[in-house]
Amino acid sequence: MSVTAAQGFVAAGGAIGIKPAGAADLAVVATSDGRAVPAAGVFTDNLAAAAPVVVSREHLRTSAGHAAAVVATSGNANAATGDPGVHAARRLCAIVGEGIGAAAHHVLVCQTGLIGVPFPSEVLGGVGDIVAARAGHEDAGRAAARAIMTTDTVVKEAVAYVEAEGARCTVGGMAKGAAMLAPRMATMLAVLTTDARAEPAVLHEVLAAAVGSSFNAMSVDGCTSTNDTVLLLASGAAGPVDADRLSAAVGDVCRSLAEQMVADAEGATKVARIEVTGAASDAEAHAAARKVADSLLVKCSLNGADPYWGRVVSELGSAGVTFRLERTSVRYGGIEVCARGVAAPHDAEALAVHMAGRVVEISCDLGVGTGTGAVLSTDLGHGYIDENRTTS
Amino acid sequence: MSVTAAQGFVAAGGAIGIKPAGAADLAVVATSDGRAVPAAGVFTDNLAAAAPVVVSREHLRTSAGHAAAVVATSGNANAATGDPGVHAARRLCAIVGEGIGAAAHHVLVCQTGLIGVPFPSEVLGGVGDIVAARAGHEDAGRAAARAIMTTDTVVKEAVAYVEAEGARCTVGGMAKGAAMLAPRMATMLAVLTTDARAEPAVLHEVLAAAVGSSFNAMSVDGCTSTNDTVLLLASGAAGPVDADRLSAAVGDVCRSLAEQMVADAEGATKVARIEVTGAASDAEAHAAARKVADSLLVKCSLNGADPYWGRVVSELGSAGVTFRLERTSVRYGGIEVCARGVAAPHDAEALAVHMAGRVVEISCDLGVGTGTGAVLSTDLGHGYIDENRTTS
Repeated sequence: MSVTAAQGFVAAGGAIGIKPAGAADLAVVATSDGRAVPAAGVFTDNLAAAAPVVVSREHLRTSAGHAAAVVATSGNANAATGDPGVHAARRLCAIVGEGIGAAAHHVLVCQTGLIGVPFPSEVLGGVGDIVAARAGHEDAGRAAARAIMTTDTVVKEAVAYVEAEGARCTVGGMAKGAAMLAPRMATMLAVLTTDARAEPAVLHEVLAAAVGSSFNAMSVDGCTSTNDTVLLLASGAAGPVDADRLSAAVGDVCRSLAEQMVADAEGATKVARIEVTGAASDAEAHAAARKVADSLLVKCSLNGADPYWGRVVSELGSAGVTFRLERTSVRYGGIEVCARGVAAPHDAEALAVHMAGRVVEISCDLGVGTGTGAVLSTDLGHGYIDENRTTS
Repeated sequence: MSVTAAQGFVAAGGAIGIKPAGAADLAVVATSDGRAVPAAGVFTDNLAAAAPVVVSREHLRTSAGHAAAVVATSGNANAATGDPGVHAARRLCAIVGEGIGAAAHHVLVCQTGLIGVPFPSEVLGGVGDIVAARAGHEDAGRAAARAIMTTDTVVKEAVAYVEAEGARCTVGGMAKGAAMLAPRMATMLAVLTTDARAEPAVLHEVLAAAVGSSFNAMSVDGCTSTNDTVLLLASGAAGPVDADRLSAAVGDVCRSLAEQMVADAEGATKVARIEVTGAASDAEAHAAARKVADSLLVKCSLNGADPYWGRVVSELGSAGVTFRLERTSVRYGGIEVCARGVAAPHDAEALAVHMAGRVVEISCDLGVGTGTGAVLSTDLGHGYIDENRTTS
């Protein structure tokens, strides 16, 4: 129930030999008839953007926001690979385009894996067979979702529906990502499809808003990858849909995928939701929540189930936002541990129960305004280090 | 050879019961005769500043930059402790002032330990005896340096001399700090003394410059503490000294203490020096070096002795500075691994030898200007997590 859930899309996944030992490493999502449909993309703002990011941006420009397919590979990021890397990404698009009967510039590409390793172009011979095997059933979508996994331990898929006036429109998506920028194989990629009918400009607006409240509101290690890409294609098969309703459904899919990513983050034993209220603005609330979420010391405390709110207050005080210690309060799972900047009496047993759980809620009120924001995060455990200390 | 190396200073260290089991937790550094002398301080810019920071700033203002003593405690940060915390810090100053025959506002105070735990004022009864035991010999300085340690595994002391026209002036210092070392200083305390004669304004300028090139150019975990304090007292016993020479000596002491802190950072097995050249400005070079230094993924690679330069390039590309991948090169220990944005052929054996060492040098050239900057950092190992996951 992911990229093939919406009408008008087919998918496939398989192995072309980027990864060793025949592991799945190539996914294709395409329109059923090979026709280019409205599409939108949101990409990393890393200035060391990978070749597939360069090529996908270029194709969306050339096509004025239309695409017939997305090809995604795992096992090599094709980043910091110079002109040969860009050439390989273009060839990948051309081969897929040929397979489905579309122009190369109607194919978008995303890739994930090690940075700085030349892309092994000799594997491209295997792409055609996988494209030819594309199908519209659920297993085909699952195969595509599996082929983009790197250090992920579970497949990530989501679907949401818009019901209106007897008609139903579907939004489906798949994603990979287990750290913002993973170890041996990197990045977060997400591909969404919908059968709603919508113009490229509307799609882009809907997608950008959804990314802002989902993927951009989580933090595993504060690193921004060279390859992050979120794509949305709209077949139009289900007819027009109210933009607000479409926006809600796309947001639901993105948030579900983001939560699955955080839950699967490398070495994580806990998911933390950091909420900031009472900030001078929403932007300040978000910045403060992110400062707490990114803090190594807060992450270590979470790993130890230690409700050491002093570190939270210290991060808030150095977040670059309006802050008055004597107006600040902190709650863990609704239990107030810091009131007006000092320790608050509380039920230590109830607090210990909350801290021992898989999901920890940290709510901070700054008491200086009405701004609110929230960021999903994780703890930091030995597993993260073990996963990331070497690429071999 | 630290805070008692310069003429005109005495020191003492001992236990008053903040820490359990009679561990040393109070240090005093004072002028030999209890007279207030020119003094300067540089403090954290965390808006959740601890009570001792509030009180020391206030005392330096009241005294127009003069102090007769510094009292430092470890085991409780006296941060997020409200008015009772400020009151306790003031009482500490008053008791020490009484012991040496100085006004309370001529005593500066710094404290380190857990945030948010009420300061146990009942221990203040033990302060007088330690103050009474102050002495000018080397062991007294060492006892003071030992009493400010928290998670430090070694005492941190440094001394530097200015020789000019037959006269000699001395700068000595002690410090504590083993984590939370970050931009704009971190949970670190440093007390410096000199027998040079200098006005408060000159001292402040000298100290601020020295902090900028030492404590503010290192990073262990990117966290900025509530308690950071660096203090400098000048007895004047050795007479006037050229300001540039004094500045050089104070800088030497600060840099030595900073290097000792980074080397002693919690859980660290390696020290990394991240250098950036060819940036659009010195400020951009420093920002880029700090982004690499703070990166969890780069730190994990260092822990695994893995020269994965892709992560370095990715951090440079998201550092918010002028960046062109095709102009970027990266060297580890002088060995070029990335040239013009792509992998460079290199001697893998020599590289492995460098990565296996205790000190790793990462040099990045951005190729867009003449700005340079450098930041000291560490790897991230299991030890850091073990040290920080619980406070109990």
